[in-house]
Amino acid sequence: MVITLTTDFGYDDGYVGTMKGVMAAIAPGVPLIDITHSIRPQAVAEAAYILWTSLSYFQPDSVHLVVVDPGVGTTRRPIASRTAWGVLVGPDNGVFSYVWAAAPPELTVVLENPNYRRSEVSSTFHGRDVFGPAAAHIAAGVPLEHLGRAVRDEVHLPLPLVEIGRGEIRGKILHIDRFGNAVTSIGRLNWVASGLDLVPVFGPPVSETLDPAVLTVFVCGHAVGRVCRTYGDVDKGVPMALVGSEGMLEIAVNRGHAADALGLAVGDDVFLIVSNLKGADNGGR
Amino acid sequence: MVITLTTDFGYDDGYVGTMKGVMAAIAPGVPLIDITHSIRPQAVAEAAYILWTSLSYFQPDSVHLVVVDPGVGTTRRPIASRTAWGVLVGPDNGVFSYVWAAAPPELTVVLENPNYRRSEVSSTFHGRDVFGPAAAHIAAGVPLEHLGRAVRDEVHLPLPLVEIGRGEIRGKILHIDRFGNAVTSIGRLNWVASGLDLVPVFGPPVSETLDPAVLTVFVCGHAVGRVCRTYGDVDKGVPMALVGSEGMLEIAVNRGHAADALGLAVGDDVFLIVSNLKGADNGGR
Amino acid sequence: MVITLTTDFGYDDGYVGTMKGVMAAIAPGVPLIDITHSIRPQAVAEAAYILWTSLSYFQPDSVHLVVVDPGVGTTRRPIASRTAWGVLVGPDNGVFSYVWAAAPPELTVVLENPNYRRSEVSSTFHGRDVFGPAAAHIAAGVPLEHLGRAVRDEVHLPLPLVEIGRGEIRGKILHIDRFGNAVTSIGRLNWVASGLDLVPVFGPPVSETLDPAVLTVFVCGHAVGRVCRTYGDVDKGVPMALVGSEGMLEIAVNRGHAADALGLAVGDDVFLIVSNLKGADNGGR
Repeated sequence: MVITLTTDFGYDDGYVGTMKGVMAAIAPGVPLIDITHSIRPQAVAEAAYILWTSLSYFQPDSVHLVVVDPGVGTTRRPIASRTAWGVLVGPDNGVFSYVWAAAPPELTVVLENPNYRRSEVSSTFHGRDVFGPAAAHIAAGVPLEHLGRAVRDEVHLPLPLVEIGRGEIRGKILHIDRFGNAVTSIGRLNWVASGLDLVPVFGPPVSETLDPAVLTVFVCGHAVGRVCRTYGDVDKGVPMALVGSEGMLEIAVNRGHAADALGLAVGDDVFLIVSNLKGADNGGR
Repeated sequence: MVITLTTDFGYDDGYVGTMKGVMAAIAPGVPLIDITHSIRPQAVAEAAYILWTSLSYFQPDSVHLVVVDPGVGTTRRPIASRTAWGVLVGPDNGVFSYVWAAAPPELTVVLENPNYRRSEVSSTFHGRDVFGPAAAHIAAGVPLEHLGRAVRDEVHLPLPLVEIGRGEIRGKILHIDRFGNAVTSIGRLNWVASGLDLVPVFGPPVSETLDPAVLTVFVCGHAVGRVCRTYGDVDKGVPMALVGSEGMLEIAVNRGHAADALGLAVGDDVFLIVSNLKGADNGGR
Repeated sequence: MVITLTTDFGYDDGYVGTMKGVMAAIAPGVPLIDITHSIRPQAVAEAAYILWTSLSYFQPDSVHLVVVDPGVGTTRRPIASRTAWGVLVGPDNGVFSYVWAAAPPELTVVLENPNYRRSEVSSTFHGRDVFGPAAAHIAAGVPLEHLGRAVRDEVHLPLPLVEIGRGEIRGKILHIDRFGNAVTSIGRLNWVASGLDLVPVFGPPVSETLDPAVLTVFVCGHAVGRVCRTYGDVDKGVPMALVGSEGMLEIAVNRGHAADALGLAVGDDVFLIVSNLKGADNGGR
């Protein structure tokens, strides 16, 4: 049993510490594990992606507190949602959408029981006054049903796109990490004997095996080349595509910073082109 | 029982980890909770403010370690101070002033007993050699009285100012947070039925109810307008004033960065003007 | 028993949280203590220095997980190494070299037993799939011998240099910390009654007592002056040399940023010159 924390509070203020103080008082001894507090301010989709990559690695009895909340103090609902990946606690603004696509909500409640909030709720810091206390009470054993009424109309963001067309697969850059690697929505890709299997991660289970010898990756007007197995398959400083740690197509530069080198940004289009131009001539290979 | 840590060590070096190693060896199993390590180097007043906003949310049996210590290696005293908000451990340079204003020192001792320091004390890293060991020994049960002689002449910083004049209240910007919100010294403000109650947080308990309809906030030559209830009360990108999570008047921009947009800095003057120009005409409302 | 973490993952992504999820599932209840995640990407020598300054302060039953791994997915070996400073877990790329110089490897094994890895090992995130699981299994009690075959040909980096010449001692800048202090390879220096004792930290135990009255420190063409006892020995803004918290000669500016003020960078040469020009005249002092 642990509580994880994901926020856009940053590391410069006392907000994270304050929230941990509230939780440690309610659920003493429960480990508090930071996922990150560096979500860009109010970047709900970015947080949704980070949660999707991380939460499945925790035990299913974990409680996952998320405070990326541009609507704090408005009518957006505070919720807790039980899933196969643990209990999610945060604002109902779509931040859990990608997790729910993999681990659907089993029960979602609105956090409205005043017994499980701080007695005075500010209009600007629900992490301290609403979400933190709820997460800690759940970790301490309070059943979800006690926290408020059940709802079924959770807010969902559009899922990351993978468009499979004639001879091309189109996706978008989802995230650029500290190393400058650009993670795309094209995935999950799995290396198999005959090539690369594609199982769109958030879509229906369409699957086709791709021949890496005839694939070229394009992003922002750059032909990045073939899909490699690992960073070391190209020389230092050379751009490349590879299957990242979550099975998504990723644009990288060996020992370099791909986003800077190629001018990449979150939201840019990425194309995986089947450039099998030789046609029938190719049959004998 | 937890130990919290607040320092200006940053996250790039091994200093925080080293200090945690020393403490984990003395008080194994006691949770170590980071408040922040991003205090600007040697910014004692900033640390004093962060501590004041955070420490009251922890259980009163907590130990709060603070290392923001421009005078390391000089004659400034290392101290531990028991308060209603927990035991404070750090340099006697005023960093605890704002906490002490709310939770006065019950017993302050100088950390001079060599049994509760590392055997070799460097002249540059008292976090590792003096403060960390003291905090851990206190958390492990050593009475404060064993650590050194009691003193009553702790160093105090001037407290954040709230000047209440004729038709205006003057304060200063205390802190700019990650979101660009400027927290001021004007507070605590509480919304009541008839308007806003002001109880100066560090001053004597003078109280008067303000009518938000006749209040205008000025900062750095900008008229920021009325005091709103929440960020969403204005359109995206519009500056505003509101009562922040600690009850202080706060300057913000809805989904924007107020400090950048308005050119605000810590120490700038802020005015809350009672612009009730209609005088007696106003009586019938 | 704790597990420490040192990586170049930064604080912006979900990588650290993911790794902690994997470890918390295998070794629930074992405290996870961050040393730093801000190692510059792929800066193996910098990580080696940070580890050397921090790990000796932890209990010897600790497990130290390090993921600074430019060769991930290539043939570099994943290892675990038992030492007097705890068990080291990470890539065999020299990152443990400085620790091993102080605490030699007692047993090093290659992490090849599939029972102690995740069932699918990605080619880009061995922290999650190989190193994290190994560290957690070791912390949970699995003997090192079970993880893989023993090796004795670990990769070692060249150790930081201290050259002792006629009237001069030469070293290099090893690290620049958050405060702008430049830590050099000249050490360890200890203040004794007759002056400064020098015991080269990674070299043979040659020792000579230096008279601080006749020493001048030069770095990047700047004469920094004598070796002081503490920051406060010079006025605010004045450059100085002193013995840092690890016993290494350090270049600092009192309440300032030495690296910016003097234009210092990691790798720059530093000289400690014995400028005893008075010769025999000096005998009577």
